[in-house]
Amino acid sequence: MNVKDFKWEQGLTVKQLIDQYRQVGFQSVELARAAEVFVKMKKNNAKTYLTFTSNMVTSGLRGFFAQLIKLKIANVIVTTVGGIEEDIMKAKGEKFKVGRFDSDDIELHEQGVNRIGNLTINNEAYMNFEDLMLPILNKLYEKKKRWAVSDLLLEMGLTLDDEDSILYQAAKNNVPIFCPAITDGAFGFHLYLYQQKHKDFIVDVVQDFGNILFSSSQDEKKAVIALGGSISKHHAILCTLLNGGAEYAVYMTTAHKTSGSMSGATTEEAKSWGKVKDDSDVATVNGDVTIMFPLAMIWALEELKKEGLLEL
Amino acid sequence: MNVKDFKWEQGLTVKQLIDQYRQVGFQSVELARAAEVFVKMKKNNAKTYLTFTSNMVTSGLRGFFAQLIKLKIANVIVTTVGGIEEDIMKAKGEKFKVGRFDSDDIELHEQGVNRIGNLTINNEAYMNFEDLMLPILNKLYEKKKRWAVSDLLLEMGLTLDDEDSILYQAAKNNVPIFCPAITDGAFGFHLYLYQQKHKDFIVDVVQDFGNILFSSSQDEKKAVIALGGSISKHHAILCTLLNGGAEYAVYMTTAHKTSGSMSGATTEEAKSWGKVKDDSDVATVNGDVTIMFPLAMIWALEELKKEGLLEL
Amino acid sequence: MNVKDFKWEQGLTVKQLIDQYRQVGFQSVELARAAEVFVKMKKNNAKTYLTFTSNMVTSGLRGFFAQLIKLKIANVIVTTVGGIEEDIMKAKGEKFKVGRFDSDDIELHEQGVNRIGNLTINNEAYMNFEDLMLPILNKLYEKKKRWAVSDLLLEMGLTLDDEDSILYQAAKNNVPIFCPAITDGAFGFHLYLYQQKHKDFIVDVVQDFGNILFSSSQDEKKAVIALGGSISKHHAILCTLLNGGAEYAVYMTTAHKTSGSMSGATTEEAKSWGKVKDDSDVATVNGDVTIMFPLAMIWALEELKKEGLLEL
Amino acid sequence: MNVKDFKWEQGLTVKQLIDQYRQVGFQSVELARAAEVFVKMKKNNAKTYLTFTSNMVTSGLRGFFAQLIKLKIANVIVTTVGGIEEDIMKAKGEKFKVGRFDSDDIELHEQGVNRIGNLTINNEAYMNFEDLMLPILNKLYEKKKRWAVSDLLLEMGLTLDDEDSILYQAAKNNVPIFCPAITDGAFGFHLYLYQQKHKDFIVDVVQDFGNILFSSSQDEKKAVIALGGSISKHHAILCTLLNGGAEYAVYMTTAHKTSGSMSGATTEEAKSWGKVKDDSDVATVNGDVTIMFPLAMIWALEELKKEGLLEL
Repeated sequence: MNVKDFKWEQGLTVKQLIDQYRQVGFQSVELARAAEVFVKMKKNNAKTYLTFTSNMVTSGLRGFFAQLIKLKIANVIVTTVGGIEEDIMKAKGEKFKVGRFDSDDIELHEQGVNRIGNLTINNEAYMNFEDLMLPILNKLYEKKKRWAVSDLLLEMGLTLDDEDSILYQAAKNNVPIFCPAITDGAFGFHLYLYQQKHKDFIVDVVQDFGNILFSSSQDEKKAVIALGGSISKHHAILCTLLNGGAEYAVYMTTAHKTSGSMSGATTEEAKSWGKVKDDSDVATVNGDVTIMFPLAMIWALEELKKEGLLEL
Repeated sequence: MNVKDFKWEQGLTVKQLIDQYRQVGFQSVELARAAEVFVKMKKNNAKTYLTFTSNMVTSGLRGFFAQLIKLKIANVIVTTVGGIEEDIMKAKGEKFKVGRFDSDDIELHEQGVNRIGNLTINNEAYMNFEDLMLPILNKLYEKKKRWAVSDLLLEMGLTLDDEDSILYQAAKNNVPIFCPAITDGAFGFHLYLYQQKHKDFIVDVVQDFGNILFSSSQDEKKAVIALGGSISKHHAILCTLLNGGAEYAVYMTTAHKTSGSMSGATTEEAKSWGKVKDDSDVATVNGDVTIMFPLAMIWALEELKKEGLLEL
Repeated sequence: MNVKDFKWEQGLTVKQLIDQYRQVGFQSVELARAAEVFVKMKKNNAKTYLTFTSNMVTSGLRGFFAQLIKLKIANVIVTTVGGIEEDIMKAKGEKFKVGRFDSDDIELHEQGVNRIGNLTINNEAYMNFEDLMLPILNKLYEKKKRWAVSDLLLEMGLTLDDEDSILYQAAKNNVPIFCPAITDGAFGFHLYLYQQKHKDFIVDVVQDFGNILFSSSQDEKKAVIALGGSISKHHAILCTLLNGGAEYAVYMTTAHKTSGSMSGATTEEAKSWGKVKDDSDVATVNGDVTIMFPLAMIWALEELKKEGLLEL
Repeated sequence: MNVKDFKWEQGLTVKQLIDQYRQVGFQSVELARAAEVFVKMKKNNAKTYLTFTSNMVTSGLRGFFAQLIKLKIANVIVTTVGGIEEDIMKAKGEKFKVGRFDSDDIELHEQGVNRIGNLTINNEAYMNFEDLMLPILNKLYEKKKRWAVSDLLLEMGLTLDDEDSILYQAAKNNVPIFCPAITDGAFGFHLYLYQQKHKDFIVDVVQDFGNILFSSSQDEKKAVIALGGSISKHHAILCTLLNGGAEYAVYMTTAHKTSGSMSGATTEEAKSWGKVKDDSDVATVNGDVTIMFPLAMIWALEELKKEGLLEL
């Protein structure tokens, strides 16, 4: 395929832009490749694992993830507990703010403002989160004493009422949410306080391993969309590994393979493990997910819509 | 400003996407800020320096740069000589190819294919370039013996006939092209061979320093769009420094400030030098230019068109 | 402090090199700053949390981490389960290999070789790991049915006999190991299989939250050494946040703050949260941990030894 | 080769550390590979091109580069003009300072302090540089009117008297310094002012292309040490390309290949061009040069010294 000069035309749609990116070069080409893999995942009815780190839920991607669950693009979610907490906060009306990367952090601290890159969350959001945890945990505890994490998150999703919530859409669409480090956040602290008073309350992470293991099968086509790194990414590909490897995989990250980290691990490296199949359709895109992911996924959604493969 | 959940709607335009990016988070926010600075540059009639590295001319951005010259968005160009060579090759019909980052480079070498990231250029393109240099240099030499670089590039642009060519559009629209390291490429080799036979043929880089110095003035509003790093970026901001500092600046790069390199230098660092003014409107966006720059600039073009500030 | 010309002298020690780095520039300066913070941590008897990702245990840093536990430099460990698994594998004699970043991954897969950057682990190591898990789990289950993760890891450490093992040294030196996502690896799979046959076997992550929470106190001085990102890093600073903030912190990572990720989050960002104190001694070093960490820590060890603060 | 646990021993030398790095993993392994390539360059009498960007001269690496010229490790230098200026400033006694990456740049500007990452240069240094340029240019002009850049830099080196100066050592040891963009800095400004009064004063960059072209030959073994990216790196490998390709190459940079930039271009990519030979000994190390380069080069110097291959 030839490199082609890119030209702007008035009213250019995202779809048209990505069509051009395929022939521009460097990461724009990889982005267009990722977009095509997204289409194949859906067309071939692959069970699709969408993984993301909590900072993406801090960002406005949260609503997009919820939409993708609703549109049956994402069939299984894996994330970190910060993302769970913040999805709930937002569902309850908390407002996060756009700030600056080079803020005065001591000043922010005095104002009770917590910074995540160029976004901020007020302390109040965490206090309000605390208030809402107790009644939910009471309700869960009444039902049973021992909870697999994804079952617990399902119940929490059922208490929410927000179309843009990941937990809400997941609960509504039978999409399980896995969170292998459920205690690594304010959520963990509240679970701990609750357990102090109810010693027989158990969050069973081992049982949930079975749940993600059986969330797909050897026979089924499988796909992974890993946004950022961390255990979210690893947990999904561990599952596809145990189920014979994924047929499709897209990794998007700012990390590089030179560090030998999970964050920077490429879809090629995944082949050595059998996390993805040798002949899988894969793409690794390097860059900020808040920009890259919408671009590639919008192209896929437009394409799928055109082909009548999207239920709106 | 609040973080806002991003949602896809069918037929989404690039303009609408960037409007949403402003409230998404991380680099999408910085990208939207850059887009707004682009609009201000034009609205306030700033003399705008567009700088880019040669790999961007290898990519399909080349046509976009040409378009921006035609649209009077870019008033001065600074680039490296690889970009000059490849612009001319493309204007003469050479086709560059989209390849892969992890190609077998020894195999490519055997095939006479040169790789630049995931793009490739055949050896033939360099041979053909050689053939066209001699008649042009002869013509130049007939006119005069001593050439400032930008004058020489203007003459070369006049010999081309390609709407998508940077040199062609620059020549047509009185936009000077500066290339402070004119010999760092095949171009340099051909200049050298020519000079061997014509000892009085002189490419005068010192004289061209005056040309870029007087390409704007203290009184004039100035703007810098620096894509990638290298001397292209530095040469433009050296010029704005000597002319009192730029009022607007957007840096887009994959490099980070942690290395202390020019590539990673931020618009903030530029303030310490007076390269941009203390109260300037600036944005530094981190990421692949082939994706970032079209996005931000398209938003600006659509906005400027809407406000009647764009001559189409 | 002036920049000083660096010069090599024959037989230069690491200590002397870092002494010079303080005046070299860019990350060498930050590295020297980190080294000084390491010394202060120990001198002021701060309870020190050492966190690392599993790929660092894949690497030869594993023996260094074990040594730092033995030397009472690291008082609490937080890591991911891959690191636990690989530490045990190595303690049992498995050999990992040095390979190449650009290996043919399909070929590796056929050979049963799993790649992590430029290192590899054979499938056999995982099979042998499986064999040794059952007897250990049986032994644990006999003792009691419900295990906090760190207690379980302590027991595992007691079964090992390898001076270079993190689990061994931790068990021997009363250093707790926290692993907030204990199921995210082969370990999790084996726990799951075991629980299938022993339904009352429980791995209690919530209880372990209490263990890390009380691993230090408000009154105690606290320090964090976070190598790489992920939940290891987050879990430690969540703990220091709940205990009033750390007095000392060093982050080393290849990630950058521009992505808004936990991996790239700086010690400055940590101040907004109260994860580190406003007036804490902090350093953020950007670069590959396998190079950076030994350099900075060796300087500190030599310095501490000189001052008689190190028990050898 | 097996991964080996790293352990600190008191008084560890840099040589011993790098010996261990070979078996640690990730970039430490690549660093050790680079160290071995450095030894081969010297052992096999390869003509060695050392290239660096100007920020490395801002840093304390400047003295090390001078030392490497003296030790006959570097036989040809390619750099940017900022590096030339700052080497001269330092030779004349200017002191640069170690500062902070997150300085208040507007405040620095008010104080007349220019920032380069976490280093700073006072405005006075530039003013003093201006004062010393005129007499030197007068002297040059008296000798002849037309100067190839490397000849001009040789003359400047002869006026200096500082063992730690790159220009001084280069002049003393017959090591040419190439600077393909000689006007891209204060130096260029002063050349311009001088030429305004002496129209027949010519800086001939084309002639200097011949000088670098003939700085080595097809028959000779060639080596490239490229620190950072930019035209310095490109100019050296353009020269080795035209001379049949280098036998040895080490690239050290913080840039990544994903951007398709010259800064991030790997030694593999160089093979497709013939910049390095197909069967060359190469290493690409990712990371901050101020840390990486001394480490790898010190190992090589110690090794060469041991083998009696170093003239001290």
